[in-house]
Amino acid sequence: MTSDSHSDSYAEAGVDITAGYRAVELMARHVERTRTPGVVSGLGGFGGLFAPEVAGMERPILVSGTDGVGTKLKLAFALDRHDTVGVDCVAMCVNDIVCSGARPLFFLDYIACGKNVPERIEQIVAGIAEGCVQAGAALIGGETAEMPGFYPEDEYDLAGFAVGMVDEAKMMKNEALPGDVVIGLASSGVHSNGFSLVRRVFDMDPEALGTHYPELGRTLGEALIEPTKIYVRPILALAEAVDVKAVSHITGGGLYENLPRALPAGLGMRIDTAAIARPPIFDLIAREGDIPERDMYNTFNMGLGMAVVVSPDDVDGALSALAAAGEPGTVIGEVTASEGIEL
Amino acid sequence: MTSDSHSDSYAEAGVDITAGYRAVELMARHVERTRTPGVVSGLGGFGGLFAPEVAGMERPILVSGTDGVGTKLKLAFALDRHDTVGVDCVAMCVNDIVCSGARPLFFLDYIACGKNVPERIEQIVAGIAEGCVQAGAALIGGETAEMPGFYPEDEYDLAGFAVGMVDEAKMMKNEALPGDVVIGLASSGVHSNGFSLVRRVFDMDPEALGTHYPELGRTLGEALIEPTKIYVRPILALAEAVDVKAVSHITGGGLYENLPRALPAGLGMRIDTAAIARPPIFDLIAREGDIPERDMYNTFNMGLGMAVVVSPDDVDGALSALAAAGEPGTVIGEVTASEGIEL
Repeated sequence: MTSDSHSDSYAEAGVDITAGYRAVELMARHVERTRTPGVVSGLGGFGGLFAPEVAGMERPILVSGTDGVGTKLKLAFALDRHDTVGVDCVAMCVNDIVCSGARPLFFLDYIACGKNVPERIEQIVAGIAEGCVQAGAALIGGETAEMPGFYPEDEYDLAGFAVGMVDEAKMMKNEALPGDVVIGLASSGVHSNGFSLVRRVFDMDPEALGTHYPELGRTLGEALIEPTKIYVRPILALAEAVDVKAVSHITGGGLYENLPRALPAGLGMRIDTAAIARPPIFDLIAREGDIPERDMYNTFNMGLGMAVVVSPDDVDGALSALAAAGEPGTVIGEVTASEGIEL
Repeated sequence: MTSDSHSDSYAEAGVDITAGYRAVELMARHVERTRTPGVVSGLGGFGGLFAPEVAGMERPILVSGTDGVGTKLKLAFALDRHDTVGVDCVAMCVNDIVCSGARPLFFLDYIACGKNVPERIEQIVAGIAEGCVQAGAALIGGETAEMPGFYPEDEYDLAGFAVGMVDEAKMMKNEALPGDVVIGLASSGVHSNGFSLVRRVFDMDPEALGTHYPELGRTLGEALIEPTKIYVRPILALAEAVDVKAVSHITGGGLYENLPRALPAGLGMRIDTAAIARPPIFDLIAREGDIPERDMYNTFNMGLGMAVVVSPDDVDGALSALAAAGEPGTVIGEVTASEGIEL
């Protein structure tokens, strides 16, 4: 973790080096939680080092992904709660790479802020570390950039980068066939997409966010900031148990945009939306924003965090493996011989 | 490259999906320039895939780095010039990882903007691709996040992530000894650090930036936006030719903070600053900002982009290898038996 440079002149220009060092100190114990056997330390100081275990692989493939948290950060600012967005950031990256069957190896973060408040940076990194632990990835590097005048003092952006690896022989190759079965894994809520729309529906003022809704069983702010679920362990457990044809991570663009990404050209899916347990936050958003059902499914995950495709013969094995991994799946539809997503 | 989601409701919330698709179309030819044999395409759609060549390696080590461009972006905004900051972004990452002797494999970018202007995104990606070509890295993924209300419409942040690989047997292990020789590689100018200070000295208004300075031979803006030099090819050529003890990339914190990072504890360096050709922009900054010499060396590279350490026996071979790689080096000092950087 590096921080920007050090001089009296620089401090006058608004860059606080002491805060940078203090932030690095505070984040150390969180980073330590994420250490895995591949981490190489004690060598060099300019890059993060990781020794991947390639023995026995026919052809190791590195799978990488980058993503941010988007305008969900505005919610964290409004709630002054900073220890969950790091989970979101890791989730958005690792849920993408596990779609190829890759096991996450390591993660790096980029935090850009208007003012380096060490305790706030620590909270952000605590969330990142929690996400890394859930994903089995080591946090081996990052950048905390203090950019006065670029970001407001109380704001920051956050992006992450995950690298995983999979043997080419075990990669998911998106070879679904008509008649294959679609199994859904539940989302934890809105996850990290669609927040520009959420912000249009609900002003992000503290009063609205502090409102308790009986159907949510908590405040609006608490329901919205619920971190994105990380599906690495159940998906890898599933891939050990059965032949997974495809996995789709439902992100921006909702079901309409993301389900086809896991399918060969020419095929589609018929999804029984009644089989997807819909967290109450989505009905609240639709009602308060007067948003048509189709737009909802084109923006949000609507309760479906990940969709996996297996052959009909593998359905029972898949459901058992998912349940054993603590992430029960539900049959929600099938692959069809014509393009398009039919809900 | 993904973009955010798609619905009429979403468009009303300020996220322009059509622009996102258009940006992806426009960036395709730039991405294509960076393709290398390791790129795996046609499989999957959620992560970037790369097959590293590990055959013959004793123990492959992945070396990764992330960095942004910092407030140099404000200069790009002021000049409305967006095709160079991508080079800076790649440079900041790959110059770090080559310090371990790692050859860059691939790169991912994160662009966050207030409004997706496809032609501007294209310019940014053109610069990233140019940097990737210079570094020999494939651009295999990225995220363009449109975050209305988070960034001003004309602004963006940019971060990148590079992964390289080196056989552990060939890693630079920072094993310098007293009496070893320090060779300097020239910087192209301010590179991408110290811009918060630059901004304090020179208002970033168009008039100041458009001022032609005889000693610069160009305008202030042109001198300041000069992209960071990428040292991957000369450093790797050098490592083929001689035993490189250590490499230091001079970034934020200048010579005082970065030179020690390449040294074992207890050792220092004596540097003859007269041996470093100082680009005239640094004298201009010091004069206009009334900045003490020590602060200058503690903030800027002052003409020294990279420093490498070799044994005295290898100096001639090192200088020949660097010259052959098109990046002449100069002997600028030696490793000393006591801690600290003596200029």
